[in-house]
Amino acid sequence: MKNAIIIGATGFGGLGLIEILLRHPEIRIAQLAARRDTGKPISRIFTHLEGFCDIEVRKPEEIDLDNIDIAFFSTPDRAGMTIINDFFNNNIPVIDFSGDFRFNSIEHYRVYAQNKGMDDTHHASDMLRHAVYGLPEINAQQIRNASVVGNPGCFSIAIILGLLPAVEEGIIESDTIICDGKTGVSGAGKNPGEANFYSQRYENVNSYREARHQHIVEVETLFGRMRSPQIKIVFVPQIVPLNRGILVTAYADIREGINSEKVFELYSEYYREKPFLTVTEQSPNTTDVRGTNQCRIKPMVDERTGTFITITVIDNLLKGQSGNAVQNANIMLRIDETAGLMAPAFYP
Amino acid sequence: MKNAIIIGATGFGGLGLIEILLRHPEIRIAQLAARRDTGKPISRIFTHLEGFCDIEVRKPEEIDLDNIDIAFFSTPDRAGMTIINDFFNNNIPVIDFSGDFRFNSIEHYRVYAQNKGMDDTHHASDMLRHAVYGLPEINAQQIRNASVVGNPGCFSIAIILGLLPAVEEGIIESDTIICDGKTGVSGAGKNPGEANFYSQRYENVNSYREARHQHIVEVETLFGRMRSPQIKIVFVPQIVPLNRGILVTAYADIREGINSEKVFELYSEYYREKPFLTVTEQSPNTTDVRGTNQCRIKPMVDERTGTFITITVIDNLLKGQSGNAVQNANIMLRIDETAGLMAPAFYP
Amino acid sequence: MKNAIIIGATGFGGLGLIEILLRHPEIRIAQLAARRDTGKPISRIFTHLEGFCDIEVRKPEEIDLDNIDIAFFSTPDRAGMTIINDFFNNNIPVIDFSGDFRFNSIEHYRVYAQNKGMDDTHHASDMLRHAVYGLPEINAQQIRNASVVGNPGCFSIAIILGLLPAVEEGIIESDTIICDGKTGVSGAGKNPGEANFYSQRYENVNSYREARHQHIVEVETLFGRMRSPQIKIVFVPQIVPLNRGILVTAYADIREGINSEKVFELYSEYYREKPFLTVTEQSPNTTDVRGTNQCRIKPMVDERTGTFITITVIDNLLKGQSGNAVQNANIMLRIDETAGLMAPAFYP
Amino acid sequence: MKNAIIIGATGFGGLGLIEILLRHPEIRIAQLAARRDTGKPISRIFTHLEGFCDIEVRKPEEIDLDNIDIAFFSTPDRAGMTIINDFFNNNIPVIDFSGDFRFNSIEHYRVYAQNKGMDDTHHASDMLRHAVYGLPEINAQQIRNASVVGNPGCFSIAIILGLLPAVEEGIIESDTIICDGKTGVSGAGKNPGEANFYSQRYENVNSYREARHQHIVEVETLFGRMRSPQIKIVFVPQIVPLNRGILVTAYADIREGINSEKVFELYSEYYREKPFLTVTEQSPNTTDVRGTNQCRIKPMVDERTGTFITITVIDNLLKGQSGNAVQNANIMLRIDETAGLMAPAFYP
Repeated sequence: MKNAIIIGATGFGGLGLIEILLRHPEIRIAQLAARRDTGKPISRIFTHLEGFCDIEVRKPEEIDLDNIDIAFFSTPDRAGMTIINDFFNNNIPVIDFSGDFRFNSIEHYRVYAQNKGMDDTHHASDMLRHAVYGLPEINAQQIRNASVVGNPGCFSIAIILGLLPAVEEGIIESDTIICDGKTGVSGAGKNPGEANFYSQRYENVNSYREARHQHIVEVETLFGRMRSPQIKIVFVPQIVPLNRGILVTAYADIREGINSEKVFELYSEYYREKPFLTVTEQSPNTTDVRGTNQCRIKPMVDERTGTFITITVIDNLLKGQSGNAVQNANIMLRIDETAGLMAPAFYP
Repeated sequence: MKNAIIIGATGFGGLGLIEILLRHPEIRIAQLAARRDTGKPISRIFTHLEGFCDIEVRKPEEIDLDNIDIAFFSTPDRAGMTIINDFFNNNIPVIDFSGDFRFNSIEHYRVYAQNKGMDDTHHASDMLRHAVYGLPEINAQQIRNASVVGNPGCFSIAIILGLLPAVEEGIIESDTIICDGKTGVSGAGKNPGEANFYSQRYENVNSYREARHQHIVEVETLFGRMRSPQIKIVFVPQIVPLNRGILVTAYADIREGINSEKVFELYSEYYREKPFLTVTEQSPNTTDVRGTNQCRIKPMVDERTGTFITITVIDNLLKGQSGNAVQNANIMLRIDETAGLMAPAFYP
Repeated sequence: MKNAIIIGATGFGGLGLIEILLRHPEIRIAQLAARRDTGKPISRIFTHLEGFCDIEVRKPEEIDLDNIDIAFFSTPDRAGMTIINDFFNNNIPVIDFSGDFRFNSIEHYRVYAQNKGMDDTHHASDMLRHAVYGLPEINAQQIRNASVVGNPGCFSIAIILGLLPAVEEGIIESDTIICDGKTGVSGAGKNPGEANFYSQRYENVNSYREARHQHIVEVETLFGRMRSPQIKIVFVPQIVPLNRGILVTAYADIREGINSEKVFELYSEYYREKPFLTVTEQSPNTTDVRGTNQCRIKPMVDERTGTFITITVIDNLLKGQSGNAVQNANIMLRIDETAGLMAPAFYP
Repeated sequence: MKNAIIIGATGFGGLGLIEILLRHPEIRIAQLAARRDTGKPISRIFTHLEGFCDIEVRKPEEIDLDNIDIAFFSTPDRAGMTIINDFFNNNIPVIDFSGDFRFNSIEHYRVYAQNKGMDDTHHASDMLRHAVYGLPEINAQQIRNASVVGNPGCFSIAIILGLLPAVEEGIIESDTIICDGKTGVSGAGKNPGEANFYSQRYENVNSYREARHQHIVEVETLFGRMRSPQIKIVFVPQIVPLNRGILVTAYADIREGINSEKVFELYSEYYREKPFLTVTEQSPNTTDVRGTNQCRIKPMVDERTGTFITITVIDNLLKGQSGNAVQNANIMLRIDETAGLMAPAFYP
């Protein structure tokens, strides 16, 4: 068994890791740490864990890096960059959940931070050259040997997986892709603010940060390596009264002569070996992937208008966050990529 | 007081009319009719109406057209066309909630019917030349004198109102407009099918009829009168776990030199005299308009990509259906356009 | 028109008052005050009010008591007691939403405060002898002449109205009544704490403060005047994933020989003149009364076990709070008791 | 591996079994059968199963009983009784989800059927003497050797487990116990009727079949064996806007001298060896047990009124249905009782 430490264990990201690792055949939870709610078992904070995980939550200062094989930083933006050096110096590979290590270039980080309205100085900028963008479907080789993996943003994962075959195969004509995102509220965490209290959210849909969401730069950076002129992303995220789930609908001009049948074949072939990807001709439901690490994509062409459309669903807390992180960890620890991640969901 | 008859009183459309007319200062409910649940008070079917409206629901054969000033057909597709003649011959103006009278041309009706998977023969095709598209913000003059008004589809209303100033003022460069719609389930009515039971819907988002929704032809027909070459609409509707509300996000290429400030001014000016339209720089919430006949629009430009974006919210059962119908009725009966429709919503 | 001031305008209680008074034929909103979010229009805080109510929210120090006919304190516990004297000295009748003025005796207040875990000293204890318990169905005469009305707790209203005829008519045999309450989350206000974020609440039911909820003492105090030996209330409240609505199921031993038919008659007769009370043989729905000032009660007897059961529903924000407060205000200002309160709800 | 057949595979009960057995180390799904939706893979009906379970659903006439070790009848009332003989004659033990085999006496069955408004003749009444009430916490020994197990009603399980220690230890003074139940809608199945569409349910709480729910006779029959005079149950069930989850609050007079501490000890001791039972001093949440086979109970005493109160939560589809059924199957097949049932839930 490999030993994992989770920094930031008391948020939804940390909880997702705990829930997965409790079922994982080869990784065990060695230590939990957090800033708040320390000195008591995690099952006091998340009562459903009682009897399953009663490990005490430590302060960051109290952790012990001996015998740790992998570290998960399920911490907010700008937390990981202040502690990364300890882990790097101890040769402990790190998977960070924030934007701190999603970019190799300080310029890209700055755009990200500015879009999020944060301080844009990076306190571990020398580590950026080691950072690997943690999307296994595209970067498995680099992830395997990485010391620092930046786990992607949840929307980024859905957008990239939904468009990757089309961008790489060059079937998109336009330089701009429209991405319309819908997300559940759990992505905002355990303390998502007044707009996401039950009374305020249960019957409300609204958009936010239209065309300036921080995940745009992630997607453009990645696609920028693949195609010139660079693709620009127009992304409008929307919050819907949903707990778990992301659905992204993307639109672009299609190269002439390509129809729904062809894009279905192209996508099916592209993702044939990817264990968590399903290409489908049915309209996917967020419930199809809820509670799992799967991603389902319906690619199609509206021939009447020459428009390429893909609809992509993931569970924002799993393939969009902790599931993807464990997939990364499996690769980094030379475990089967799907270990601990292949259970069917409960429905309804 | 004017006398109204509601055919199809036992669905959500009929209920919406009842709830509005109970507060209306100049229109009273004279008769209620429906196919099912007849012979008992409407308050047995909708128990919250007890004490407010206990009128008995009649069979269609039992209605009496004497002294009726206006008729609402809150009936499904293809019902209105079989009874319209009686009303027309009695000089009773009709507002129909289905697609039966939204088109002047039989060809457009056929596209509509085929997209909805229905029989496409029209049993009152001679009435189509009398039909007026019932969107008061654009057709008030014709509505005033109409004998048959086709109340628009709920998505059509949100799409058209969100784009109308831009299309009419010619600031859209592209021939295609992307419309991404999110709707609550109440639009599917009281018996919306297995996918919309609480257990199946509460945590699910899914798309349906992508790029072939029946409202596309409504929008294209209307915009076709205004601009050449004709604008094509790419419309992907999505159902979210919401009861009431529609939010449509539309995307198009913007003419060079136009920024967010300019489109905000243009929209504000265009809708200045429209009592139910609000142009806003804030991201609108579906709860802003829930329970009202209002429509709120946020127009903006993403200058980085040259993309025009509008976000439009309505209550699908009110401005998207029965509220809009009463607005039409007010105009047809020479009553103040806002009568019975200007109350603030309850929140939360 | 009478002039009202609302202190605590930026919470759900204040909002409820605003929404009702905007439709009220004889009371207008003269001033709004609050501790936070001052200096801007209320429609910036509750965006759905834009165009309906754009009055600026003042600091409590900035209010002006000239020409004020009635004051609503929609403030938390222990706020009203610090400002009541100003209003009393200016002969402005006050309706307070908290527990500050629900009791005539300092002992009862102390039990209330202790059960809620608050400081139990009362800073306006000399005012308690003027305080009238603001339940119009039982206290209309005293309310008419009151200078200070304590608007009851939402659960108290549902419990009392559901049991009042039975207690007063003496058909309950036992000295203990079991009250099982279910409430939506809006009762906890705009900032209800971590347990009521959408993700945490949407699929959770839990009980809290079992048998020690602060409303017990209100009910026992009231019933204590009517019956000896005093009735004791066992009350277990539960939060369900609901926004608006309270349903209370009460159980007690029934006097022999009384069946469902008899209690139905007794209740119907008792509430015959009460405009907001409906006695029904159908199982009531919270949606029957949502958005209204109504209370619906189903009284029944399980003859097999000799158990009296009543099921009572109200909208916790209306009959349970601001609707009841306006009903009190109508009585105090010699306006028709139902003014501004008789609209049917919107459904669904 | 043991082979299981599921009759009634296309409902939520069947689905629950499939989801559990896919993770089960010692039972595999051999065949699926149902009345409707036959001839296609189960993953076409429940799309989230794609890739996890693509077994074709057969008609009941097409099943093959060779090599079947256990049969689950996740069928509606009155279906199992028509097919039980085939299985009995082939020595295949059966676990039935309906009320068909929950009683040894035809009289009890009749009360059950009448309360549910069904035909009360039993077409396999000779099998009733073989029937074992399938609650492992009380009947493990008989279940082990049973040929026919009647899996209890979901409410019955919550009520019985919540009261069992108190009834058996004789600490309840009264002959009547009040049970107030709250349930999510998934218990009503995939086609729960108009009242449970999203629009109708999302903001509604209502009671139903007050004091005449069909599960009362199950509980009284069971407790009747333990105590004389027989305990009577007053049970009022309520539906809340919840998908999964049951919370039952029970009230009875407590024997003098017993306080919260003592009942907590008594309950803790009583359930010490039961793997799925947790006795807690915290107010339990339905989310604590959602997605699991657990039951959590908070027993307490309100000394002020002499009232014993227990609050019990289960997942109605798991410990309340298919989880409990697999627990029975484990016992019948001499597998560890917890096999396949011990995973922690996902939250939120």
